[in-house]
Amino acid sequence: MNVQEIGEQGLLKLVQSFCPPDFVGDDAAVLTTHPGRSLVITTDVLIDGVHFSDQTTSAADAGWRAAAANLSDLAAMGATPLGITVGLGLPGNTPVAWVEELYRGLTECLNQYETSIVGGDLCRSPVLFIAITAFGEAAPNQLIRRSTARSGDAIVATGIHGASKAGLELLLHPALGEALSESDRALLIHAHQRPKPRLDVVEWLWAEGRGQGEGSEGAIQTDAQHLIPLASPSSLASPSSYSSLPSQIAGMDSSDGLADAIVQICRASGVGAIIDRSQIPLPSALQQWVGTEQALDWALYGGEDFELILCLPLTWAQALVQRLGKGAAIIGTITEDPAVWLVDATGNQPDQPLTLERGFQHFSG
Amino acid sequence: MNVQEIGEQGLLKLVQSFCPPDFVGDDAAVLTTHPGRSLVITTDVLIDGVHFSDQTTSAADAGWRAAAANLSDLAAMGATPLGITVGLGLPGNTPVAWVEELYRGLTECLNQYETSIVGGDLCRSPVLFIAITAFGEAAPNQLIRRSTARSGDAIVATGIHGASKAGLELLLHPALGEALSESDRALLIHAHQRPKPRLDVVEWLWAEGRGQGEGSEGAIQTDAQHLIPLASPSSLASPSSYSSLPSQIAGMDSSDGLADAIVQICRASGVGAIIDRSQIPLPSALQQWVGTEQALDWALYGGEDFELILCLPLTWAQALVQRLGKGAAIIGTITEDPAVWLVDATGNQPDQPLTLERGFQHFSG
Repeated sequence: MNVQEIGEQGLLKLVQSFCPPDFVGDDAAVLTTHPGRSLVITTDVLIDGVHFSDQTTSAADAGWRAAAANLSDLAAMGATPLGITVGLGLPGNTPVAWVEELYRGLTECLNQYETSIVGGDLCRSPVLFIAITAFGEAAPNQLIRRSTARSGDAIVATGIHGASKAGLELLLHPALGEALSESDRALLIHAHQRPKPRLDVVEWLWAEGRGQGEGSEGAIQTDAQHLIPLASPSSLASPSSYSSLPSQIAGMDSSDGLADAIVQICRASGVGAIIDRSQIPLPSALQQWVGTEQALDWALYGGEDFELILCLPLTWAQALVQRLGKGAAIIGTITEDPAVWLVDATGNQPDQPLTLERGFQHFSG
Repeated sequence: MNVQEIGEQGLLKLVQSFCPPDFVGDDAAVLTTHPGRSLVITTDVLIDGVHFSDQTTSAADAGWRAAAANLSDLAAMGATPLGITVGLGLPGNTPVAWVEELYRGLTECLNQYETSIVGGDLCRSPVLFIAITAFGEAAPNQLIRRSTARSGDAIVATGIHGASKAGLELLLHPALGEALSESDRALLIHAHQRPKPRLDVVEWLWAEGRGQGEGSEGAIQTDAQHLIPLASPSSLASPSSYSSLPSQIAGMDSSDGLADAIVQICRASGVGAIIDRSQIPLPSALQQWVGTEQALDWALYGGEDFELILCLPLTWAQALVQRLGKGAAIIGTITEDPAVWLVDATGNQPDQPLTLERGFQHFSG
């Protein structure tokens, strides 16, 4: 059965079965916010044939990815999710089962982060598209902005990069992956189809800060003190040194690639960066499979890994990386000089500047 | 120049010029909410050729209408707006001037209600579409729900119905309107192109309630007392009688037609209604131009008038109608019997039931 045959009321009933009942039946959804927290809002449009296709993405995966991309934007702001709305444009011949699978994928992802679909709109359209708006909230002093990176900050990547692009290539050209083990193939494809927004990082960053009142210095000092027993590398400074920590962590997500994230943060903050190519965390099988240069290219420019790129004082960064474990790494340092350089500590490769030019250009070509 | 030629960065710069600078340059927008108020969220998708077309809608009008439709949903919930996000799907050959005009129309409407575009997304798409999410807030006890209409409530339409559909017909078939005066034609077309969300009604309903604390009885009693000097028809009860007023006004907007609004409220509330056809407010020129039956049909089923249909105690309804003036009317009464009847007080026409069947079916046909 397709959406034209089931009709608007039938389709509405179907998609409403994926929403908590409180949110069905009025002109708008109503949510309760917490006093003193800021509302954080992000929106994304995904189009069949541009952002997903039947070849690489089942309806359930398209749903998961759409939810994950928006939750990742909330994580990149330091926010925890309140809910999402879903606008759908559907050709009349779209199978009803496709819509159901899409909503299943959306809610599977949302459920992992204890949030849900609170509203939406359905329309007939010549092309299939998904428009999602996600909203969350954060204490104002815990917002992560692009514009607050400071010279001397360590730059943390919360996980490996290049896996999503590698997974996409494997889906587009299955023959490419013959040299890979079954489990490596599956891991890379899973990275592409089911990316995880790093809301866990946000939760951890501020777990101890919450409830400490509005004083950001105090809140962050508490975080830092809490980090020490978890991390306790000998290089960590004593707790008292944290009282001069900045009140903001700078950062964004790497949805458009690692290079894009670093350059965007540097531009917004009026700073530069030195990135050590050997420190960029890559999927374990990737270098062997496609070589270092290709792997690095996918990590820098492939996009859609949905990790967070965070700029924060070195000791805090070290504790964060230790806490996050495998995949997380300190990849470089923020500099006063506004250029962004990819350097090779071994001296085998010349330093090269990173720019936005390789970034994703939706309207080009 | 088209959007493919200007490129993503150029287009972003253009649309960001329509947003307050605070909201540009991060992964998400950040807004401050007021303590103790509920967050209200609504979303709408509009598609070229389905919801608007070059024949009837300039880019600026499409923008205005898109903003108005979403603000109307907020008004229908009793909320005041905080902001909107705009997702756009654009074919590569869309003129940049079209996009600029769209944003001009959007912001012209938003500025009337002191709100703004706080985020968005731009994508290349085979079909042009606009996906808007609007968010607002309301005191929890001042939310307008569909489900709280009570037998005996008067049903208020805050303005005339049928004008938007008449305007659309005039745009589609200009020859139809030859019998109309220039000013009547212009008024009907304006009603279609530049509908006004009734946020003014919301503001008025609760103007005196705000700041009176959380006690809804108290807040509404104050409203009602305040109504008397404004309205003071002799039929109004004494202030003391308002202490038994319900804590909620029921209602929704008439974006899908007056009949749809009445039936939806009755269904959600488990009640029925008797609507007096002679009391339905029609544009002054409409009956003469197309006859009473056609005018009534457009009023009931045409849609997009974006008025509010509110159910509230008779005395309050009378004061509201008097305050709103020309176009506002009490059109009927909520009944315990769950049927919805359109009746003719003159007896010239048989009573007829109103249903959703004539409503807008996006996927049919």
